[in-house]
Amino acid sequence: SLVGEGNGSKKKKVMILGGDGYCGWATALHLSKKGHEVAIVDSLVRRLFDEQLGTQTLTPIASLQKRVKKWKDLSGETLDVYIGDVCNFEFLEHAVKSFEPDTIVHFGEQRSAPYSMMDRDRAVFTQHNNVIGTLNVLFAIKEFVPECHLVKLGTMGEYGTPNIDIEEGFITITHNGRTDTLPYPKQASSFYHLSKVHDSHNLAFACKAWGLAATDLNQGVVYGVHTPETSLDEVLINRLDYDGVFGTALNRFCVQAAVGHPLTVYGKGGQTRGYLDIRDTVRCLELAIINPAKPGEFRVFNQFTEQFSVNDLAALVTKAGQKLGIEVKTAHVQNPRVEAEEHYYNAKHSKLVELGLEPHYLGDALLDSLLNVAVTYADRVDNEQILPAVSWKKIGTKPKTVKPSGL
Amino acid sequence: SLVGEGNGSKKKKVMILGGDGYCGWATALHLSKKGHEVAIVDSLVRRLFDEQLGTQTLTPIASLQKRVKKWKDLSGETLDVYIGDVCNFEFLEHAVKSFEPDTIVHFGEQRSAPYSMMDRDRAVFTQHNNVIGTLNVLFAIKEFVPECHLVKLGTMGEYGTPNIDIEEGFITITHNGRTDTLPYPKQASSFYHLSKVHDSHNLAFACKAWGLAATDLNQGVVYGVHTPETSLDEVLINRLDYDGVFGTALNRFCVQAAVGHPLTVYGKGGQTRGYLDIRDTVRCLELAIINPAKPGEFRVFNQFTEQFSVNDLAALVTKAGQKLGIEVKTAHVQNPRVEAEEHYYNAKHSKLVELGLEPHYLGDALLDSLLNVAVTYADRVDNEQILPAVSWKKIGTKPKTVKPSGL
Ligand SMILES: NC(=O)c1ccc[n+]([C@@H]2O[C@H](COP(=O)([O-])OP(=O)(O)OC[C@H]3O[C@@H](n4cnc5c(N)ncnc54)[C@H](O)[C@@H]3O)[C@@H](O)[C@H]2O)c1
Ligand SMILES: NC(=O)c1ccc[n+]([C@@H]2O[C@H](COP(=O)([O-])OP(=O)(O)OC[C@H]3O[C@@H](n4cnc5c(N)ncnc54)[C@H](O)[C@@H]3O)[C@@H](O)[C@H]2O)c1
Repeated sequence: SLVGEGNGSKKKKVMILGGDGYCGWATALHLSKKGHEVAIVDSLVRRLFDEQLGTQTLTPIASLQKRVKKWKDLSGETLDVYIGDVCNFEFLEHAVKSFEPDTIVHFGEQRSAPYSMMDRDRAVFTQHNNVIGTLNVLFAIKEFVPECHLVKLGTMGEYGTPNIDIEEGFITITHNGRTDTLPYPKQASSFYHLSKVHDSHNLAFACKAWGLAATDLNQGVVYGVHTPETSLDEVLINRLDYDGVFGTALNRFCVQAAVGHPLTVYGKGGQTRGYLDIRDTVRCLELAIINPAKPGEFRVFNQFTEQFSVNDLAALVTKAGQKLGIEVKTAHVQNPRVEAEEHYYNAKHSKLVELGLEPHYLGDALLDSLLNVAVTYADRVDNEQILPAVSWKKIGTKPKTVKPSGL
Repeated sequence: SLVGEGNGSKKKKVMILGGDGYCGWATALHLSKKGHEVAIVDSLVRRLFDEQLGTQTLTPIASLQKRVKKWKDLSGETLDVYIGDVCNFEFLEHAVKSFEPDTIVHFGEQRSAPYSMMDRDRAVFTQHNNVIGTLNVLFAIKEFVPECHLVKLGTMGEYGTPNIDIEEGFITITHNGRTDTLPYPKQASSFYHLSKVHDSHNLAFACKAWGLAATDLNQGVVYGVHTPETSLDEVLINRLDYDGVFGTALNRFCVQAAVGHPLTVYGKGGQTRGYLDIRDTVRCLELAIINPAKPGEFRVFNQFTEQFSVNDLAALVTKAGQKLGIEVKTAHVQNPRVEAEEHYYNAKHSKLVELGLEPHYLGDALLDSLLNVAVTYADRVDNEQILPAVSWKKIGTKPKTVKPSGL
């Protein structure tokens, strides 16, 4: 079937901002494999965060230069690389003018909620980095490549946990006898999540005022490490964060299980969110790219495949551990965040499926393989990094100058 | 009646960020007159914008130092002054710790939509200045004066022009059989208006996560120049902007009428907005201050008294001109903005009235006096500054280095 293949075999010139990161690297290889021309733009600041926090990815990742060379050796495909900060407009202008993308995928933001809640300086950095970077991208498109489709990563966290169904970006409201379709109300709960809300509003305006074409992908929590391309060679391996600042729910649990650390369920564990496999992330990006938004259109897709509560995830990891002979315990730790621990949650996510997404559901096989990766690299785990280290209420103006576990 | 007097005669320590500006100066004097202890914080950057753009307020304003000295001479009251940028946290920390406000009024932002649409650099400046400044204020309150009530200026422009009634900040939505009260959806249409949307989301979070108390005043377009205090002496006179960048609708029309320039109606002139008299601005601020939000509460008031379309305003100014023997013409100029020119508009604005606001409606007397001020200072008008100089669609990345009329 041609469903989801959009303009048939048309190959795109895709510039991936944040292409050295967790989602960006996997996406770059996937698109390159599919015959698209790919450039990576990244300041490598994510690697700096690890140095500064004293954290490390579970999986030993190679330098971007080595990764790109290995991909060339294995696939014959070239990935253009531009090292720089999208907040630096001169740099971005140079990169965009020289590559001339028809699609820009924007992953290049500070993406950890706890990082944004560490201290004032990092809160300000996060909103500046993300909001100004995205403004620069909008201006670069308007000026230099006005036909270029922007595919921007947002987060399901923009919606918060309203007591009504979450729609994909917009909601039709009838009020006092009149009706309109309006942006879905946003209730984000960290300075990081808020930065994405700000981006979404800026994007909607740029599409309306300037006729830009943009897709906002409100992504759920991504889990997993391997994609067919990143598992071709250890030099291509993707990052897997498990620490209390950059690690996300399911990935963290698997690493905790592998080293015999109790799963750290925050509070009551009833917090329900949307999740997806990294293999679906790369496919969703591909689907959005080959079926672009129209000029002037601001589209929003909710990008996740299944909903789980934190307790659901703990139970699944416990069961998968048993199968592998690992005894998994759970510890309810004090919730460092300010969030509802029991709430209604029902979020729509049909638009990417309509474009052709065939989800990888979180099954035993995935959990086994993720747990096995965690077991393989268990000796790299720093137990000090596992506990949550950042409190939503204790954030202050004094800079945190040591690694979180030492706070 | 004691309605609106809140905690009776309790006097407040009010720090006014942006206290040298149009709304801020009038508010500072009004509150000082009412016996509150007032400090002004301002970087004076608004005066720099005028220098750089080659524009000037119609009314000749004195330096902040002279204004404050004159007020002391006339009223016996001291206004503390802190000159600096709220984006500079060290400065803000010093000011807050030394004054120890129980109320912070935040007017201190770049507030012109056209300015934010001049070029990329000014768009970025606007969002940085406003969003980071407000983040700093939130952190300063959390750390140094956690009980302090924040009264933050937003704008009615955050709501855009939805096809349903505009509520005050929140809307109750019933959807698929469930109900919740959620933030009212935002559709701002300039980088300036968007910065206010971002601020509102950040504020809501800070109140929820940290228990801060905040009032967001979504203000309409302010008109008029005199308040009882600013008209006591010419040294105390308030600014009146009429240029294409900083001038706002009704004030601009009065100045245009006074110098025989046709009223510049953008497009069809059906754009309807909420308006209020500067004498009501200062009273609204007072009401919000003496009836503070509770800890953890994020309140939103729509701060305007009447709705007018641009054509309504043109007709009112034409009629007032006739009375004074001035012949007023109207010219429909091409709309430099991207906005609906015919639309539904019905915005609620009862919360401040419930607190005791008794509106000054836009009547002949006000228009006469505003027109007369314009006539008095007509020789200061630079005709080159009257036309709209900034186009929403033509904004680019090349810096605008000369005054707008020369673009
Ligand atoms: N990982 C998830 O579970 C998840 C979930 C929802 C949304 N997202 C979003 O997807 C995107 C990618 O997430 P990720 O997990 O791959 O994050 P990541 O931190 O692994 O990757 C982000 C990359 O962007 C780069 N970057 C950051 N700021 C930059 C700047 N100013 N200029 C240039 N490069 C910059 C970093 O160096 C890093 O390589 C982010 O926008 C994130 O918010 C991720
Ligand atoms: N004037 C209106 O019609 C109107 C309508 C709706 C909302 N508002 C809002 O009311 C507030 C005041 O508006 P105004 O018309 O008095 O504007 P204004 O430009 O006359 O005053 C703003 C003041 O803030 C100062 N300022 C700006 N950035 C600063 C910073 N980073 N640090 C310190 N000081 C800074 C400026 O120097 C200026 O004196 C603004 O937030 C504006 O958005 C105004």
